[in-house]
Amino acid sequence: MSDPTGKEVWLAARPHGVPTAANFDIVDVPVPAPTDGHVLVRNQFFSVDPYMRGRMNAGKSYAPPYEVGAVMDGAAVGEVIASEDTSLPVGTTVLHNKGWREYATGPAAEFSPVDPDLTPSTSAYLGVLGGTGFTAYVGLLDIAEMREGDAVYVSAAAGAVGSVVGQIARLRGASRVIGSAGSDAKVSYLTDKLHFDAAFNYHSGPVAGQLAKAAPHGIDVFFDNVGGEQLEAAIASMNNYGRIAACGAISTYNDTEPTPGPRNMFQFVSRRLTMRGFLVFEHNDRRAAFLRDVSRWLREGVLRADETLIDGIEHSPAAFLAMMRGENTGKMVVRL
Amino acid sequence: MSDPTGKEVWLAARPHGVPTAANFDIVDVPVPAPTDGHVLVRNQFFSVDPYMRGRMNAGKSYAPPYEVGAVMDGAAVGEVIASEDTSLPVGTTVLHNKGWREYATGPAAEFSPVDPDLTPSTSAYLGVLGGTGFTAYVGLLDIAEMREGDAVYVSAAAGAVGSVVGQIARLRGASRVIGSAGSDAKVSYLTDKLHFDAAFNYHSGPVAGQLAKAAPHGIDVFFDNVGGEQLEAAIASMNNYGRIAACGAISTYNDTEPTPGPRNMFQFVSRRLTMRGFLVFEHNDRRAAFLRDVSRWLREGVLRADETLIDGIEHSPAAFLAMMRGENTGKMVVRL
Repeated sequence: MSDPTGKEVWLAARPHGVPTAANFDIVDVPVPAPTDGHVLVRNQFFSVDPYMRGRMNAGKSYAPPYEVGAVMDGAAVGEVIASEDTSLPVGTTVLHNKGWREYATGPAAEFSPVDPDLTPSTSAYLGVLGGTGFTAYVGLLDIAEMREGDAVYVSAAAGAVGSVVGQIARLRGASRVIGSAGSDAKVSYLTDKLHFDAAFNYHSGPVAGQLAKAAPHGIDVFFDNVGGEQLEAAIASMNNYGRIAACGAISTYNDTEPTPGPRNMFQFVSRRLTMRGFLVFEHNDRRAAFLRDVSRWLREGVLRADETLIDGIEHSPAAFLAMMRGENTGKMVVRL
Repeated sequence: MSDPTGKEVWLAARPHGVPTAANFDIVDVPVPAPTDGHVLVRNQFFSVDPYMRGRMNAGKSYAPPYEVGAVMDGAAVGEVIASEDTSLPVGTTVLHNKGWREYATGPAAEFSPVDPDLTPSTSAYLGVLGGTGFTAYVGLLDIAEMREGDAVYVSAAAGAVGSVVGQIARLRGASRVIGSAGSDAKVSYLTDKLHFDAAFNYHSGPVAGQLAKAAPHGIDVFFDNVGGEQLEAAIASMNNYGRIAACGAISTYNDTEPTPGPRNMFQFVSRRLTMRGFLVFEHNDRRAAFLRDVSRWLREGVLRADETLIDGIEHSPAAFLAMMRGENTGKMVVRL
């Protein structure tokens, strides 16, 4: 009998501007039996995230670039199906960083067991209980130092991070939660399902005017997932001592020219604003508090964890591209 | 005998863009004898500062606008020459906010006695021991949280605030102090007199390239007095966890169109930068520490407090305009 094979997604070529399917290869590779101390995992879900766009470029950033002609990686959840390490018996559900593939192998230490019974779907470990949820929690509470009574604005509010930011803001006593998104359906989702106080479609007009209308008393916190025009508009609506968590700038990741910056930076002085960028993996001291709070909110049914699931590794490049276009609601996850 | 008269500077008309002498009126006004509880002060020095440009515009900012056809105000030092309040006898040197005039009157509570023997000239209370020195101290140590070993870059480094920032950075153990200024003479002043490690003339080429050369290991702190191109260049040179104190944006104060913003805001995320604006008058809890440290450094002769003095109230509009063009070295002060 020949060795089993599994599919992986490789970076075929670095994109210039907006990536296309041609930037990805779906490749069949042998699936080796695990050696001593190693495990073999069948992935059930893997994550596609905005930060991966940066890794498709050459050049130094905070994460190493993907290599052309090699498998990409990222967060994934799977089940141990063969084990040569007693710490991870067959059947264990594990979270790890060998996504964009059907089968993952490696030393047991590279796989973390998770409780599959904590959530209806273990895909939650890629979203609300994973990196995007943790990003929302740290960015809102620690970086932007959100306090009870703050008016909070979040861009890309229907996305994986933004949808959690807005809900945590509400649960932590924000006076007003405002979000923007890229379709009227998402705007309805924000107000009807996530109970945002106000939301608007950034395609329907200049952000500054829509935000000013949605936040008649200004905003105290801005959680920026988008950059560009959103940032300038938020600065214009900031109250004194406002705080900005700089989380991402998805509007700019495909840009081939530098993005024009906010033309109102002097507001930082006159309104005593603070803006702080962060990378969530540097805040692991907050992980226990995050898991405690978010799992309680999930148990109590006060936090929604919506996902957009795309089935099949062969559709994962399309899932990534759709996520970059903002077609997901909640976390975009590839289901295998 | 007719009442004595004194000169005041009034706002004649609001400027559009760069102000000119036509925006100011020098007006003779009667000098009244002080009433009960009031004092009469002959001003010796008054301050002209960049923030006053904002007050020449209509519209809300953090300080109220000057009124057209009324005297301007600002920091001044003078001597009590008539007193109807026992707390401030004739001969007391006082700091107050009724500048842009030869004689100031008002309730004694509006005048603060200062020690004339602490410095060679009481004009220091308008500069290194006054608002600009305090701005440098708070901005560098509290807002930018400068720590020993940081590489510090300051724009408008030969100005009233910048010159103190660079010197405090050195005194507090910066690994490298870098400044930019608008003339080769000022660049020499920074390196030869203030002992900056590196300095450059921002007219001699793009700031980003000159800064990168002057700070081969990047910068940890940027103290921004200038805004515009300086801010973008500093962001580009920032090390991880770099901190920016947003103090002013003199390059933009005469702009009639919004200033283009930094095109590299994503660096806030990837390098985990923090930028914070501040207004020094909200940090009075730090005033005692500031006065203690700066007066000690002055006594020890390790801190220079250079000034550019312009004589005569009739030359005060020209002094202000020259300061806005960056023609001063150290604090620009009008001497009466």
